[in-house]
Amino acid sequence: MEIVLATRNSGKVQELRRLLEGLPITVLFLEDFREIPEVVEDGETYEENAVKKAREVAAATGRMVLADDSGLEVDALQGGPGVHSARWSGEELTDHERYMKLLEKLQDTPEDERGALFRCTIAIATPRKILKVVQGTCRGSIVSSPQGAGGFGYDPVFMPVGYNHTFAELSPEVKNRISHRARALEKAALFLEGYVHSSLEEG
Amino acid sequence: MEIVLATRNSGKVQELRRLLEGLPITVLFLEDFREIPEVVEDGETYEENAVKKAREVAAATGRMVLADDSGLEVDALQGGPGVHSARWSGEELTDHERYMKLLEKLQDTPEDERGALFRCTIAIATPRKILKVVQGTCRGSIVSSPQGAGGFGYDPVFMPVGYNHTFAELSPEVKNRISHRARALEKAALFLEGYVHSSLEEG
Repeated sequence: MEIVLATRNSGKVQELRRLLEGLPITVLFLEDFREIPEVVEDGETYEENAVKKAREVAAATGRMVLADDSGLEVDALQGGPGVHSARWSGEELTDHERYMKLLEKLQDTPEDERGALFRCTIAIATPRKILKVVQGTCRGSIVSSPQGAGGFGYDPVFMPVGYNHTFAELSPEVKNRISHRARALEKAALFLEGYVHSSLEEG
Repeated sequence: MEIVLATRNSGKVQELRRLLEGLPITVLFLEDFREIPEVVEDGETYEENAVKKAREVAAATGRMVLADDSGLEVDALQGGPGVHSARWSGEELTDHERYMKLLEKLQDTPEDERGALFRCTIAIATPRKILKVVQGTCRGSIVSSPQGAGGFGYDPVFMPVGYNHTFAELSPEVKNRISHRARALEKAALFLEGYVHSSLEEG
């Protein structure tokens, strides 16, 4: 069986590969296809975005597709930036500029009110329909200054509960076990495993 | 699709029904079949027991089967009673006698050393093979005297992390969201959902 990963993020690609290891599933990438239309993530929820991306890429490739959308929900910002995390405070900002802007907004917020939640939604679709939508979350807090060089996005300012390091400081092994994306991918992988097992039985 | 639940515990039956709601899966019970041989749970691990039960019931019924094994691992008892939880301290004890025995063993153990882990392993098998083994855990501590009348087994003495009530005091809704068995069943349900979706596509 083949599945197309609707992302250009290499970290996500590696994580999915690891989780699907040992299964008869071939992971394909957007780069493997020509002329995949750019999907505009203009939904009001993670699920809308993930479903839209999965559906459009499945239609364009004729294959099964896995697509995700995720965001950071900061308690003191009433759950913002949330679904707008990637585009928040200006489309043209770099990751660094974006998380510095977040720290600026939280500069008067005391330590015990800096809670935040990373959320990831994954949709799996065939060209015919949406098969499954799953979600993963990771609770933590926003530190006062960036720490670490790993990861991407808001990772240098997010410290997961139970750890003394930000996502950007944790090893990929640890992050890929506890992150919102890892938790959603684990569920997606279980679904896909059942799916592929059944195909094997039938075939 | 049909699946046989290899348990005579009605709590487990209800939980699985809820998790599989909306899927075209019919849950069957051991009572629906005649002459299912009693499976002796003599394995050294939860997985051995769950796999053995799933395999034997699948062979006897000719159906897909879901079987579980679980146990309570108490830090101060070096992980005991663990896989022997059900038979620990004498085959013939009631739940009440069994958890009172546990409290007796821990009577000199201070509060901060009473940590424990509930663990559940689920195996899914067809008559031809073991399809999948999943696991769920729930961390907590052993209280000093039994509290609550719900649940079964060690529930009256186990308080999950983040709650001020034992499993026996929590509503079924809460327990069925956070318990070791619920977490394992959630994974099993994802696998089964993929499995049944694929069958539908093929058919």
